[in-house]
Amino acid sequence: MSVDLSTPSQAQVDALFAMEVGKRIDLLMPFVNDNRVATLRGVLGRRTRRVTVALENIYHSQNASAVVRSCDCFGIQDITIIENSSQFRASNGVARGAFKWLTYNRFSESDFNTPAAYDFLRSRGYKIVAASPHPGHDVSLYNLDVTESPIAVVFGAEKLGLSEWAMKNADLRMVIPMCGLTESLNISASAAITMSHLRRQIDEKLTPEEIRLSDSEQAELFSHWLLASIRDARCVLERVIGVK
Amino acid sequence: MSVDLSTPSQAQVDALFAMEVGKRIDLLMPFVNDNRVATLRGVLGRRTRRVTVALENIYHSQNASAVVRSCDCFGIQDITIIENSSQFRASNGVARGAFKWLTYNRFSESDFNTPAAYDFLRSRGYKIVAASPHPGHDVSLYNLDVTESPIAVVFGAEKLGLSEWAMKNADLRMVIPMCGLTESLNISASAAITMSHLRRQIDEKLTPEEIRLSDSEQAELFSHWLLASIRDARCVLERVIGVK
Repeated sequence: MSVDLSTPSQAQVDALFAMEVGKRIDLLMPFVNDNRVATLRGVLGRRTRRVTVALENIYHSQNASAVVRSCDCFGIQDITIIENSSQFRASNGVARGAFKWLTYNRFSESDFNTPAAYDFLRSRGYKIVAASPHPGHDVSLYNLDVTESPIAVVFGAEKLGLSEWAMKNADLRMVIPMCGLTESLNISASAAITMSHLRRQIDEKLTPEEIRLSDSEQAELFSHWLLASIRDARCVLERVIGVK
Repeated sequence: MSVDLSTPSQAQVDALFAMEVGKRIDLLMPFVNDNRVATLRGVLGRRTRRVTVALENIYHSQNASAVVRSCDCFGIQDITIIENSSQFRASNGVARGAFKWLTYNRFSESDFNTPAAYDFLRSRGYKIVAASPHPGHDVSLYNLDVTESPIAVVFGAEKLGLSEWAMKNADLRMVIPMCGLTESLNISASAAITMSHLRRQIDEKLTPEEIRLSDSEQAELFSHWLLASIRDARCVLERVIGVK
């Protein structure tokens, strides 16, 4: 059996993340070149949790990957994955490695996990906005108020859309205004439009302090990104923390 | 061999479109119900050629279809298809029937058809804007001036992007501002963001007269849409124009 030298072992990950975050960063930093560190820091400074995305039962891996990639491109750090009957899989070609830069909150324990995901998002202060393909719903994307509270936008499966429960129990139902004969966008298109718009809105209407992650959240994420940037992470960790 | 009763024969199409447009509409209208006619008219009134999309060498049918669907959703009537080495194919599941509501201008005659497509777009008064994945290019999507002239946005193939020629010979190179580590959106995501933004801009900044199709263009398109709305078009045409 060949060993993947880029992927750390579970024992290494456990040992590393048992350490205090500053120590983790000090250990890993020498193995990442300065340009890369500067890029990571630049992107980190624009990461946000003010807006987040939740996906209920997305089964097309190509769509899932496109959403992941759009989240990364617009600096949206967290994705909540709700798996009821479908398993979330992203095709890595389409995600272009965007996967490892985001934080996933996964709900797949029971037959219907949407209530648990909604509870989780509300406990973090999010207003839950269900993306609806049907005109006539509560609010247009372009009228969402991003200054009021953090927003979690929930998107549903490709053909079936959001579950009735998800739609009914959201705080708002949102539509993207359209004027065509088909009247429904592909999920990756809807999500991209929504994220690009909300990103612009928060950048225009909120202060950097309201948008970005706290110092401790940034440090935590930075240590993950450093690890993900080291090609031969398994060897490096064996050397610096003495764990195989 | 079974005959598809919904698709008119070439002889029927030829005979129908040899007629004057008003007569065509009078002939077809009785076979489309009033609700559908009202829907078609409503959508027709919002169709535009003020913004158009050109695709150079798009080979993933799923992406092509998502772009087609987004065009329809934002009322963008024309798509220019440039086939150099790849053939444009849309997977109909994803396009959700959006195909039949748009007008295609196809360039596939020679080995490199981008110059012919650019000439065609310029002859119609379009400023050509190349969508670039690389930051630092001429202009942000959000700073494009839609009041100045009609805009044609050209998108390139998934991995290779636009050809060097296409990029160099455009009037402007445009980027969608991003702040991620992957720094490149899926093509269907880029196109959707671009179209939704430009649609909003023209609706806000131009008069309805500047946005919509001329009366004769509308009538022409309406006759196509009526035909596309008749399920048993082959039988109907045989009855009303006496051509098999």
